[in-house]
Amino acid sequence: MDASNGSQSFGETGNADIKCFFDSAPPLKDASQIKMKLEQFIENNRAKSENGKGSRVVCVTSGGTTVPLEQRCVRYIDNFSSGHRGSASTEYFLKSGYAVVFLHRRGTCQPYCRSLPDDPLLECFEVANESNITVQPIHEKTVKRAIGENRRAVMRGALLKLPFTTIFEYLQILQLIALSTRSLGSSALFYLAAAVSDFYVPWESMAVHKIQSSSGPLDMRLAQVPKMLSVLRKDWAPTAFCISFKLETDTKILLEKAGKALEKYDMHMVVANELLTRKEEVIVVTQNGNITVQRDKTRTDADVEEPLIKLVVDRHSAYLSSKS
Amino acid sequence: MDASNGSQSFGETGNADIKCFFDSAPPLKDASQIKMKLEQFIENNRAKSENGKGSRVVCVTSGGTTVPLEQRCVRYIDNFSSGHRGSASTEYFLKSGYAVVFLHRRGTCQPYCRSLPDDPLLECFEVANESNITVQPIHEKTVKRAIGENRRAVMRGALLKLPFTTIFEYLQILQLIALSTRSLGSSALFYLAAAVSDFYVPWESMAVHKIQSSSGPLDMRLAQVPKMLSVLRKDWAPTAFCISFKLETDTKILLEKAGKALEKYDMHMVVANELLTRKEEVIVVTQNGNITVQRDKTRTDADVEEPLIKLVVDRHSAYLSSKS
Repeated sequence: MDASNGSQSFGETGNADIKCFFDSAPPLKDASQIKMKLEQFIENNRAKSENGKGSRVVCVTSGGTTVPLEQRCVRYIDNFSSGHRGSASTEYFLKSGYAVVFLHRRGTCQPYCRSLPDDPLLECFEVANESNITVQPIHEKTVKRAIGENRRAVMRGALLKLPFTTIFEYLQILQLIALSTRSLGSSALFYLAAAVSDFYVPWESMAVHKIQSSSGPLDMRLAQVPKMLSVLRKDWAPTAFCISFKLETDTKILLEKAGKALEKYDMHMVVANELLTRKEEVIVVTQNGNITVQRDKTRTDADVEEPLIKLVVDRHSAYLSSKS
Repeated sequence: MDASNGSQSFGETGNADIKCFFDSAPPLKDASQIKMKLEQFIENNRAKSENGKGSRVVCVTSGGTTVPLEQRCVRYIDNFSSGHRGSASTEYFLKSGYAVVFLHRRGTCQPYCRSLPDDPLLECFEVANESNITVQPIHEKTVKRAIGENRRAVMRGALLKLPFTTIFEYLQILQLIALSTRSLGSSALFYLAAAVSDFYVPWESMAVHKIQSSSGPLDMRLAQVPKMLSVLRKDWAPTAFCISFKLETDTKILLEKAGKALEKYDMHMVVANELLTRKEEVIVVTQNGNITVQRDKTRTDADVEEPLIKLVVDRHSAYLSSKS
């Protein structure tokens, strides 16, 4: 594996746009450290699988990417995503025995933290006297679960958290993950729930200094981010099971666009969700038809991720059987 | 005070741009609740001052505002700001006896939390056994200070936290604060450290649905946000002491722009800071000349906010004396 070898990584798609995007991106900080962590994580989980347990690894992407508008970044375009979908899904993947690489936007929702207040440190704790910090009784159960479950998953080597902020970081780390999972073959799964920017300002054409506001309205031309799903599927991780997401605010075009993505990028599943109802139901688009997945409305604490991950795990199992 | 009466609030500046911005903004959620909280907070602190203690109130704004690009917001332009300046300054204002309205971007740095890790809940705590949450010894001091100091300030009615996300929310809440501090006269101080968007998409001309990426590059025209400093100074809070901030990445134009802002918006001080050196030094621009404020380099934990707030408090005292 050599993630830095750009020319090899785009071999089959031969997409000049994509090569150009990577060549012009600002270099990834800590790239070699991230690579090392990943290789160790994958190797540990591959070793477990050789003991006969059949370890599967999923890369869950979560939260939105940013697009800088200036090189010394003061302003940027952001894609909204709380990271609830990705963090909840991570919990269910862990519960199903997967090892998870959680590629998430810095500051977004973490696994096991969904039901905590926005600022848990200041909102859940008290200093009872000079020497004792206590959790408020009303938050005790959720706080303990968050801290305990997170620590257990990390300690047993089943959860690797990698943060990103910009679209450049996101795609560069995704490439590193994809190339490092190749050794896992069909046991690798990509669950691409992050809200990735469609438009960006190429690094070279970006203003170096803060854009000045004194000279009237601001006209901007943003270029399209090349679609990386093709290159992920064909070149980076051709044997992995791949699931992408489609979010729209307009129901009318949602299923059509999800179907097109399934074909165009040769995905195994596309999860179609509409902004307003995405916590109640999603529609999973596959080659064999659409499946509506709804949360269990008889339980107030039930979420749509629980049945969704059950479906994903079943389909991944079937895919593994078909390959062996 | 009637914050909803737009026509009164723009009387003297007669700025059609500003009236238009407010008229077309999406209505502020929980406006009446925010108003009530503010009135109570101001009234409590005014009552203290009648007991002879001379209570001062400062509005500290902190973090960056966002500009939605779509009405059902998936994408937005964001102004980078961690909120370190505003949260650190809040600590020193509280220490100097001020009551603080902390108008901050959701999720940015909170007072007393600067030296904590990004995700304090998951990084600072452990579950020692089934029933006990403990702080890791290395984080114990900072965690206790954060929880304890924050709680004490809120409990004694000296700290009111109001969050915002968009430029629309920010300016609407700032107006409510300004109008509610009028009764305090010159005891009110505005310390406007937030990174406010210069450009926005007027709500009516905004795309209702998510902008589609299939049709080539994206051309955007953003309008200038009308400058609210004039209306704050002249109409909303004409007797308050007002400090604005100027951030640039290009040192060459920084002082010139800060000087112009001082004149144009009739500020009492403009704090000029350059992106790369802003944690080491700032230059305070006033009618009587510029003052360079640096952090105490002999102490590793010293910050530039400590001497900055000392200077601000001194100048506010002089301003109060000159008015009485």
